[in-house]
Amino acid sequence: MVIGLGPGPAKWMTPEASAAIAAASDIVGYKPYVERLILRTDQRAHTSDNRQEMDRARLALKLATEGRAVAVVSAGDPGVFAMAAALFEAIEEDPRWLRLEIAVAPGVTAMQAAAARLGAPLGHDFCAISLSDNLKPWAIVERRLRAAAEADFVIALYNPVSQARPARIVEAFDLLRTVKVAATPVAFARAVGRADETLTLTTLGEADPNLADMATLIIIGSSETRFIARDGARPWMVTPRAYGARR
Amino acid sequence: MVIGLGPGPAKWMTPEASAAIAAASDIVGYKPYVERLILRTDQRAHTSDNRQEMDRARLALKLATEGRAVAVVSAGDPGVFAMAAALFEAIEEDPRWLRLEIAVAPGVTAMQAAAARLGAPLGHDFCAISLSDNLKPWAIVERRLRAAAEADFVIALYNPVSQARPARIVEAFDLLRTVKVAATPVAFARAVGRADETLTLTTLGEADPNLADMATLIIIGSSETRFIARDGARPWMVTPRAYGARR
Repeated sequence: MVIGLGPGPAKWMTPEASAAIAAASDIVGYKPYVERLILRTDQRAHTSDNRQEMDRARLALKLATEGRAVAVVSAGDPGVFAMAAALFEAIEEDPRWLRLEIAVAPGVTAMQAAAARLGAPLGHDFCAISLSDNLKPWAIVERRLRAAAEADFVIALYNPVSQARPARIVEAFDLLRTVKVAATPVAFARAVGRADETLTLTTLGEADPNLADMATLIIIGSSETRFIARDGARPWMVTPRAYGARR
Repeated sequence: MVIGLGPGPAKWMTPEASAAIAAASDIVGYKPYVERLILRTDQRAHTSDNRQEMDRARLALKLATEGRAVAVVSAGDPGVFAMAAALFEAIEEDPRWLRLEIAVAPGVTAMQAAAARLGAPLGHDFCAISLSDNLKPWAIVERRLRAAAEADFVIALYNPVSQARPARIVEAFDLLRTVKVAATPVAFARAVGRADETLTLTTLGEADPNLADMATLIIIGSSETRFIARDGARPWMVTPRAYGARR
């Protein structure tokens, strides 16, 4: 089973995910995610480093073929820029793997947790784009950013920076600034739900892309998205369900 | 508090949502969603019909101003085409409402539940588009569909049909067929996680848009999305994390 743990806190982990972890003999995952879990002494943890998704997928499939009850864990939703795709990418390498019973447990993903804390920025049509270009050409990222901006989607940016290419996020903002107006609301949501959570509201014109690190999810509004000011509290960030009503 | 109940079954409702419902004195929501819940005799249910989102939002804000502990419930994620946006749209109507403590509890939304059952169709960049044109001009829907297709996003379609405009989904498919190839994998995911769940895999060329009803979520693949055949079981639908690797 491929399991989404949610963004961090236990309150966002589904009962399905908790039950699947309790039922597993073997837990396979990126080390910091496995370390979130409290495992029994009869459960075996198989941890690995970042970017070893394919190795993790193959190990999980191999253990399952041996009759183990395997839980592959991902932060957030395993179906969104996470382990589910890696597992199915590997599955044709061994005909026995195609006969395994595999289930995916969905989870709350980072953009949803960020949106919940901010108000309702994803209240209308939106796109989710990973800025990582480890596995895709940067040209397709640019094409998607431009299309999403031109069609006035709200845009959620995953994986905004990587150690290998810290300038990608700056390029992305430069591109978006050629299409969207400077007043467009932007939020940097870092480590949402965790002790070191940081929410920064700004605008596309004012945003400092270097605020983003690997734990940051960025939401860039549509032309309808706005901040609603409150006394003594962070403004709400809201994308109304209606389009064009204010014009 | 605005709460996401997930797509239906209790296994997909977060502990945060369950706790918030238990703590509420008043539960406000669309009747079929409130009816999913087991309430205590000291809790008051305020149910209303579909399309009365703004009335529900105002009632919830009014009750909260009176000191009640209010839970506004949405299916799926309240932040995705649901009640959170409606609540914040209403919030400026009364200055007292802006001083309320409001929290949003995220939830698993329909496209995630559908994706989990299908494999990993949202494994790469994707868009979520509501086909409802109650609150937005159809022209913006068309513009977004075209942009999403041209930039080769996976596309999740919410609210594919309405009683008032049953032909919109046919128009949407006609438009997508002018941009994307006929072999593009498509899934109709109806009532996912419920007793009457129906999953239909097809291609853009072969798809019958009339398969969709109000409980259907449609996922249309990118050029990378494919079906992985299995003996005696539904194929997996997968969008790999890599882009252009097969070219």
